[in-house]
Amino acid sequence: MSRYALGLDYGSDSVRALLVDTATGAEIASHLVFYPRWSKGLYCEPARDQFRQHPQDYLDSLELVLQGLWKKAPQGAAERVIGLSFDTTGSTPVAINKEGVPLALLREFSDNPNAMFVLWKDHTAVKEAAEITAAANRAQTNYLKHMGGIYSSEWFWAKALHVLRSDEKVRAAAWSWVEHCDWITAVLAGTNHPDKFRMGRCAAGHKLMWNAQWDGFPPNSFFKSIDPLLDGLVTTLNPQTQTSDKVAGYLTEDWAERLGLQAGIAIGYGAFDCHMGAVAANVRPGVLTKVMGTSTCDITVTQPAQLEGKSVRGICGQVDGSVLPGMVGLEAGQSAFGDLYAWFKDLLLWPARELLPELAPEQVDKLLQALEERTLASLSQAASQLPQSESGITALDWINGRRTPDADQTVSMAITGLKMGSQAPQIFKALVEATAFGSRAITERFRDEGVPIDSIVVIGGISKKSHFVMQTCADVWNCPIEVLQSEQSCALGAAIFASVAGGAHANVASAQAVMASPVHRTYLPNADKAAVYDRLYQRYQALGQYVNGAKS
Amino acid sequence: MSRYALGLDYGSDSVRALLVDTATGAEIASHLVFYPRWSKGLYCEPARDQFRQHPQDYLDSLELVLQGLWKKAPQGAAERVIGLSFDTTGSTPVAINKEGVPLALLREFSDNPNAMFVLWKDHTAVKEAAEITAAANRAQTNYLKHMGGIYSSEWFWAKALHVLRSDEKVRAAAWSWVEHCDWITAVLAGTNHPDKFRMGRCAAGHKLMWNAQWDGFPPNSFFKSIDPLLDGLVTTLNPQTQTSDKVAGYLTEDWAERLGLQAGIAIGYGAFDCHMGAVAANVRPGVLTKVMGTSTCDITVTQPAQLEGKSVRGICGQVDGSVLPGMVGLEAGQSAFGDLYAWFKDLLLWPARELLPELAPEQVDKLLQALEERTLASLSQAASQLPQSESGITALDWINGRRTPDADQTVSMAITGLKMGSQAPQIFKALVEATAFGSRAITERFRDEGVPIDSIVVIGGISKKSHFVMQTCADVWNCPIEVLQSEQSCALGAAIFASVAGGAHANVASAQAVMASPVHRTYLPNADKAAVYDRLYQRYQALGQYVNGAKS
Repeated sequence: MSRYALGLDYGSDSVRALLVDTATGAEIASHLVFYPRWSKGLYCEPARDQFRQHPQDYLDSLELVLQGLWKKAPQGAAERVIGLSFDTTGSTPVAINKEGVPLALLREFSDNPNAMFVLWKDHTAVKEAAEITAAANRAQTNYLKHMGGIYSSEWFWAKALHVLRSDEKVRAAAWSWVEHCDWITAVLAGTNHPDKFRMGRCAAGHKLMWNAQWDGFPPNSFFKSIDPLLDGLVTTLNPQTQTSDKVAGYLTEDWAERLGLQAGIAIGYGAFDCHMGAVAANVRPGVLTKVMGTSTCDITVTQPAQLEGKSVRGICGQVDGSVLPGMVGLEAGQSAFGDLYAWFKDLLLWPARELLPELAPEQVDKLLQALEERTLASLSQAASQLPQSESGITALDWINGRRTPDADQTVSMAITGLKMGSQAPQIFKALVEATAFGSRAITERFRDEGVPIDSIVVIGGISKKSHFVMQTCADVWNCPIEVLQSEQSCALGAAIFASVAGGAHANVASAQAVMASPVHRTYLPNADKAAVYDRLYQRYQALGQYVNGAKS
Repeated sequence: MSRYALGLDYGSDSVRALLVDTATGAEIASHLVFYPRWSKGLYCEPARDQFRQHPQDYLDSLELVLQGLWKKAPQGAAERVIGLSFDTTGSTPVAINKEGVPLALLREFSDNPNAMFVLWKDHTAVKEAAEITAAANRAQTNYLKHMGGIYSSEWFWAKALHVLRSDEKVRAAAWSWVEHCDWITAVLAGTNHPDKFRMGRCAAGHKLMWNAQWDGFPPNSFFKSIDPLLDGLVTTLNPQTQTSDKVAGYLTEDWAERLGLQAGIAIGYGAFDCHMGAVAANVRPGVLTKVMGTSTCDITVTQPAQLEGKSVRGICGQVDGSVLPGMVGLEAGQSAFGDLYAWFKDLLLWPARELLPELAPEQVDKLLQALEERTLASLSQAASQLPQSESGITALDWINGRRTPDADQTVSMAITGLKMGSQAPQIFKALVEATAFGSRAITERFRDEGVPIDSIVVIGGISKKSHFVMQTCADVWNCPIEVLQSEQSCALGAAIFASVAGGAHANVASAQAVMASPVHRTYLPNADKAAVYDRLYQRYQALGQYVNGAKS
């Protein structure tokens, strides 16, 4: 009888469930549910980059997504599930009380955004991140050495400190903090009480400064030196982190009933979405997997020996076992990819949004929706007809700041070479090139630091939406690009880990051999264009250096 | 009985006639006619910056504009006209045959753009301009020393050489070349045959390298050294140039009849539009007059003694008597002012232009026209509500290259500091600031070179269209701005010269005393904003230096 693994993927807007046959890799069924409160825009203030998610959203949508899944799956499918694993966005932490309960699940905090999960893209903690980087530079051991040297406002400690400073009531009630991927795993295994709680390696290593070199987390004295408000928090964290092939616990009877599953099936340790997506994309030394959406998350792995104990400069962390057991997982990424195109579309639609309500009141919704939907496709089509030119427009991709190489959220986008004849398609082409150049800067940094990158595997929305973007990337990167067939790589990665945790496979490699996603399409670089892009990339770099220097 | 002066102003798209009472300055009547062939887009190729105007357009529209004028003017007005003068765009030259006839007026050349006037903004001669600059740098005497040191593709010799190189038939038929302002003046005076032909000081000095220091034009050997095709052309030009207060001739019987005027009335020497506009704006030492349209033309004057024989670096020329007799006229300008705003509007309307024809076919013309008309006003309104910020967007105004300081048509526009929150109004504000910074760079160059600029008088379309633009200029320039009342300053300047040529006034100063335009509105700088703009101007300069350097 076939055995199924269940991958559960919490994205920025929705949770996805994917049921996979562990013997064949066949995707049996999948379903997706949007978070109900988040969909209404509750608890967020985009103008100041505050993005919070209610824990109840995660619980409610989990029940709904499985109800939907069972309606699509063949009869009896639920009984064949031998394991489940979670991936989530991250760093997405929440304050919990002494019982391990996120504060927003308590009545008195149910509407307080500071008692909720602080979503990865929340940038309210810019100041705190800078203080943490400064403290690390002051300390005898630099605890950021395996995280690229710069702490980000998107990460655990900065977010916890920011909330503790901002909200007296949360401060009084918070006993510890926990990442989404670890919390939801523990909830289903019944291990969310701090006595039993253990974390996955991925979040701990990439965001919480966990490292084997200092036997766990940095000492309490380090965190106290940043702010006394952090005093003691690290002592509440269990340093026994585990890789995602290991069993974190077994499904409780209560949750088994609520989800329509069998009690006692294995639950693997949770991890971040793009890390598990990389596993579904067959990440291996020499291959960079790139999840391409509004931003990108770039993952590669290397043998520990390859690095010779060295720290890779300016990336988001290198953690033993964070992606694949026994290998060092390396994370990087661009703060904007699709977001840069979305910004441009939004800019171009300003006159229509401002003036159509007055000019065509009866048609305004229909017209605006159509303009929203079609503008980027039209731009792509027009841009793809333009010749490659060395006397054109140069742009940076830093519209959201720069995640890597060398994190700096204060830098911004720039564009040069504009003439009266520079129309929207010409500029869009330059923006697409800018996102490809930004990716190239990451691969070149990896190579400079001794981590080989020979080819790139791409997953995520944009990879199948635009041939123009993907071919430009192949030409700029001057290496082959494989676009994966699976539309849900992160969930597939979670299913791969669930299959190992559940005992269907002995290890991740044998699970990948049958379950990893096949390639949908390969893009090969055009040699002529690649040679020109080698020169244009120098202009991107020169403009970047100017912008880096102009800040000070 | 009142005596009237007639100012005739040939702009880029239309000719305007203005009738002024020489004793009171009262504007009696005015009329405007668009060039018929030009309005249809004939003979132009905007994609390669080729802009040509048919001489017959100038003749036909002149008759039409006077017919229209007499319908508006009180009965008997024509008999009171004692003089007329022309201003035109420039450098706008045409090839003529041995009889002084523009080639396009001959049947065999009537449809040949190379036989027509090459409009000021035609940039087909970029290569030839660079060759002329190089030749001037090689020559023992630098004949560009009074023209800022750099010859432009917008000027006489470059255009003549480009056409002579491009068109064998025109080359065979061309005996000489003439500027629009000199040709139309000579036609009405019957002096267009080369035996009788004389030029105004303005075009000759600012565009043809005429200078008293070398007793006229540079020698034939200089032009021959650039290209043998230029051999002999300079010997066909009469070096006896004259200022615009002098009589160039008297209206012929034929033209008097065609125009409804009295034969024998005085015609003053012609000049370029912004030079005459400056006279209507009461230009005087310490005052810069700025004609603000798609581009700007900036004029000031200084006593010859003030310059102590020095050449002002990087402007468009300093010519004794080109603006006011007895003073050195200095010309500068920005290649884009309103054009930068128009470019941005055009960019933002791309989705509407591309997609509305499909989405709302029955309304498309109405909607597009309304979007065209309202977008800039909406942007201005929204931008004027934004706070001044030092952490914002910095832009250059070089979308058409840079006319002054230091002409360079190869530089281009750049913009830095863009973030996800940078919307159309924020960018528009930065573009307005960029145009104001570009103006400031010109006034600072004048001051650095010993030409004082204490206040600025503004004429032209934009000056009355946007309070936001004008107030931003006052804050950036940190000096008072006077906006003139006259809607037709260039034509008014021509009328002032006509009044002197016709004997109603003894000299230009006494004519200005009664005829020059009163001030419509004064903008005063806001001290707080000016202090911030002092700092932001440094960023504009730094970005400009980066773009200048990045070219090479």
